[in-house]
Amino acid sequence: MTQSLNNIHAVILAGGSGTRFWPLSRETCPKQMLQIVGEDSLIRQTIKRINGFVPPQNIWIVTTEDKAQDTRFHLEPLGALAKSIQFIKEPLGRNTAPAIGLAAIYINQFSSDSIMIVMPSDHAIPTSQKFLSDLKLSIKGAEEDYLVTFGIRPSRPETGYGYIKVDCTSQIKLKGVLKVECFVEKPNVETAKTYLSDGNYFWNSGIFVWKTSKILSEIKTHLPSLYDSLKKIESLLFSPDKPADPITHLANDLITYKPNDSITQLLNDLYSRLEPVSIDYGVMEKSTNVLMVPATFQWSDLGSWTALDEVVDKDKEGNILKGNTIDIGSHDSIVFSGQRLVATIGLKDMVVVDTPDATLVAPKERAQDVKRIVETLKQNGREEHLLHKTVERPWGSYTVLEKGNGYKIKRIVLKSGAKLSLQRHRRRSEHWVVVSGVAKVTRESETYLVQNNESTYIPINTKHRLENPGEELLQIIEVQNGDYVEEDDIERFDDIYGRT
Amino acid sequence: MTQSLNNIHAVILAGGSGTRFWPLSRETCPKQMLQIVGEDSLIRQTIKRINGFVPPQNIWIVTTEDKAQDTRFHLEPLGALAKSIQFIKEPLGRNTAPAIGLAAIYINQFSSDSIMIVMPSDHAIPTSQKFLSDLKLSIKGAEEDYLVTFGIRPSRPETGYGYIKVDCTSQIKLKGVLKVECFVEKPNVETAKTYLSDGNYFWNSGIFVWKTSKILSEIKTHLPSLYDSLKKIESLLFSPDKPADPITHLANDLITYKPNDSITQLLNDLYSRLEPVSIDYGVMEKSTNVLMVPATFQWSDLGSWTALDEVVDKDKEGNILKGNTIDIGSHDSIVFSGQRLVATIGLKDMVVVDTPDATLVAPKERAQDVKRIVETLKQNGREEHLLHKTVERPWGSYTVLEKGNGYKIKRIVLKSGAKLSLQRHRRRSEHWVVVSGVAKVTRESETYLVQNNESTYIPINTKHRLENPGEELLQIIEVQNGDYVEEDDIERFDDIYGRT
Repeated sequence: MTQSLNNIHAVILAGGSGTRFWPLSRETCPKQMLQIVGEDSLIRQTIKRINGFVPPQNIWIVTTEDKAQDTRFHLEPLGALAKSIQFIKEPLGRNTAPAIGLAAIYINQFSSDSIMIVMPSDHAIPTSQKFLSDLKLSIKGAEEDYLVTFGIRPSRPETGYGYIKVDCTSQIKLKGVLKVECFVEKPNVETAKTYLSDGNYFWNSGIFVWKTSKILSEIKTHLPSLYDSLKKIESLLFSPDKPADPITHLANDLITYKPNDSITQLLNDLYSRLEPVSIDYGVMEKSTNVLMVPATFQWSDLGSWTALDEVVDKDKEGNILKGNTIDIGSHDSIVFSGQRLVATIGLKDMVVVDTPDATLVAPKERAQDVKRIVETLKQNGREEHLLHKTVERPWGSYTVLEKGNGYKIKRIVLKSGAKLSLQRHRRRSEHWVVVSGVAKVTRESETYLVQNNESTYIPINTKHRLENPGEELLQIIEVQNGDYVEEDDIERFDDIYGRT
Repeated sequence: MTQSLNNIHAVILAGGSGTRFWPLSRETCPKQMLQIVGEDSLIRQTIKRINGFVPPQNIWIVTTEDKAQDTRFHLEPLGALAKSIQFIKEPLGRNTAPAIGLAAIYINQFSSDSIMIVMPSDHAIPTSQKFLSDLKLSIKGAEEDYLVTFGIRPSRPETGYGYIKVDCTSQIKLKGVLKVECFVEKPNVETAKTYLSDGNYFWNSGIFVWKTSKILSEIKTHLPSLYDSLKKIESLLFSPDKPADPITHLANDLITYKPNDSITQLLNDLYSRLEPVSIDYGVMEKSTNVLMVPATFQWSDLGSWTALDEVVDKDKEGNILKGNTIDIGSHDSIVFSGQRLVATIGLKDMVVVDTPDATLVAPKERAQDVKRIVETLKQNGREEHLLHKTVERPWGSYTVLEKGNGYKIKRIVLKSGAKLSLQRHRRRSEHWVVVSGVAKVTRESETYLVQNNESTYIPINTKHRLENPGEELLQIIEVQNGDYVEEDDIERFDDIYGRT
């Protein structure tokens, strides 16, 4: 590579909600945060995969405003690496072309020769030398001012993916890289079979490599309206009167935009008026400067529960049984359970996914229709698409054990050193029983310790704070009492996680 | 009828565990206690069906020692009727012939002309005049010293039932009653089809009517060893030196047998050595004195989840969807849910049953194999076949919300006036938070009230008692703390339900 490493940036797209993995995925716990395959969540695996190939400070996460804080918290287990990662927050999701364009604007500030590697955050790719050597090859293409994509050699007549057709007769100077003839829409099964036997058709992996200057000029050509908006956004973000640390104006800060911040308002307005369009449809299908690296690495887009068949080891009956399951005589089925028992008998090509508050049962061939269940839940104002019963927080987690008329019971877990916000509830009191560790409790002007097997009481309208001053995990059982026991009855006075 | 009503007794067999309705049925909540169809539990429906036809004090429940107390509590909603019902407790289950023989011994004490109607406790029969008029007809047969059974005209070539073949050429004085030629084992599907078209084959309903003297003489002929044991049991129970209230020696008392009670020991020894045999195999198939009343009433033995198809109304897609369910495009499927959400897509001939701690998924044709799941759970020492998360008690109920390392959380509900036993735990303390109603708490020598939104603490090794002195339901959240938080860490000093 002629590029210095410092000039290569990784842009990880993390705006998706992944409704197709419901009930395991939720709006507050999208697919990229799930550990479905491998030893870590998909987004953390994505970061680890690229870390080292690009410097940590060149890793960018593009996500939406509402997901940014949760995503940031989710990355904490990465330690110092997490702190280096920069966030680009979209005011709202507008598909991949605007997200990639926005990232290009940011990265282009460093150098118009900057190369960006665009990657989804929720695909399954085993970390391997193959991935990195394919990446090196793609960068050579990008240096030649091409848009480079990665094609996956099809293993079955898949009708759920778009295809890339390569032109093997074109002479490309770069060995191992192919000229793209065209992008092809999702085929029917007959056409997919011809693609499979043809040999010149590849699956579109959604991973792209290019110079920022190149993608911006291609956007200018094929999506001129988006380009105009991006230029306006650039001038707002990086105008001469705002030279101080422009890169982190939106990046890295997790403070909510203030509505009276006129620049932020303008940005939001501009962004929300962008046409939602994918980079594939908006640019890749139209550009004549596209090369493809035939991927030598394993890949799955994990498009639905059935995609697990490609990436998870099966038992000799073809089943994937995970968690607390008992099975008699099923085959070729996927059963995912947590603590609750799922008993299955004689299933064939079925998917069963169990979570503490919801269970899904469907034949594999209908797994895509899970998104229709999620839509129904949204329409009906249900919570099962939104939250899990256990909600991960920067300080630990809480689990709603039961909600009844006038009360709610939670188990709250605080990591060592964690500190909830100083808060007050207008309509509920709280009883706390410590079941492991030691709690430090602030109640108005008092501060005291509550040991394991001791309890304390927070009356209604009382300022209070819970901390874990010890080394051990603190677990408390909280019984809330009141005529209204929802999460939004909270007034925060001080919060080390910036949520006041 | 020439019999006076007072001479007719109803014997309800309630020793079954109903593993085929797992996970809704459990060892402590067998099928007869479920409200699967109709407005009440199956056993309470059975009692209501016969009540009035026989006097309340002539209703007998035969069940096993370990189920007697729970069954008695389960009948409490029947009020005064429940108090009249007499219990015959088998030391352990030995199939239907011993259970019926034991009941015959009891009822025969009144008069050898006593007529007993033997009924399972867990079948589905809509209460109707048809049932009662069929019953009247059967009693006429019993008066003529026949064993009378009820045959169900088959509606499909069922291979899961035994059949009764009638001899239509035999002349019987009683109009509408048929002579039984023979009992036939469960057929294969081809044979079942010929039975269906033949017209002389009926399903065996398991409901029988006969004189106590007649069934005892038939047992003497066909099961002489059982007869000998029954005579010994009779002499122990009703010996001249124990004339005082012999009927209630075993019946109606719920006090645990004392091991030093030699008569009880003898009874238990005798009973446990009986050969487990069904009345069908042991007597009905061999006797030549059997009549059959072709039932005009609706009937299902509810032999498995799929039997619901016969007795529950289906939607236009042929589905039975009950509870918190969302479905897209399933047909001919059964989905049973409670509070948790069960989402189903495109199921066909499937059964999905969800309970707070366990879910079952199986094709209808494999529903019978549920019992294999239950066996596996037993072998593995699991609790999911034994208890529900919510356990009904005479004083109310408790629900285990969570059990963790060193703690257990329960919601305890006490009916108005209910009073738990005075008790002590050696290895756990308890924190109680009242979330509705008022609690009266005894803690060693103190007694005090705890109001809604107040809490109290029961240290380890402290005698305590919880009561609901108010009109309102009392609900408390109990957080147990200790190195051992199982149900058997309890020492009872006084209990109004006789459990000390």
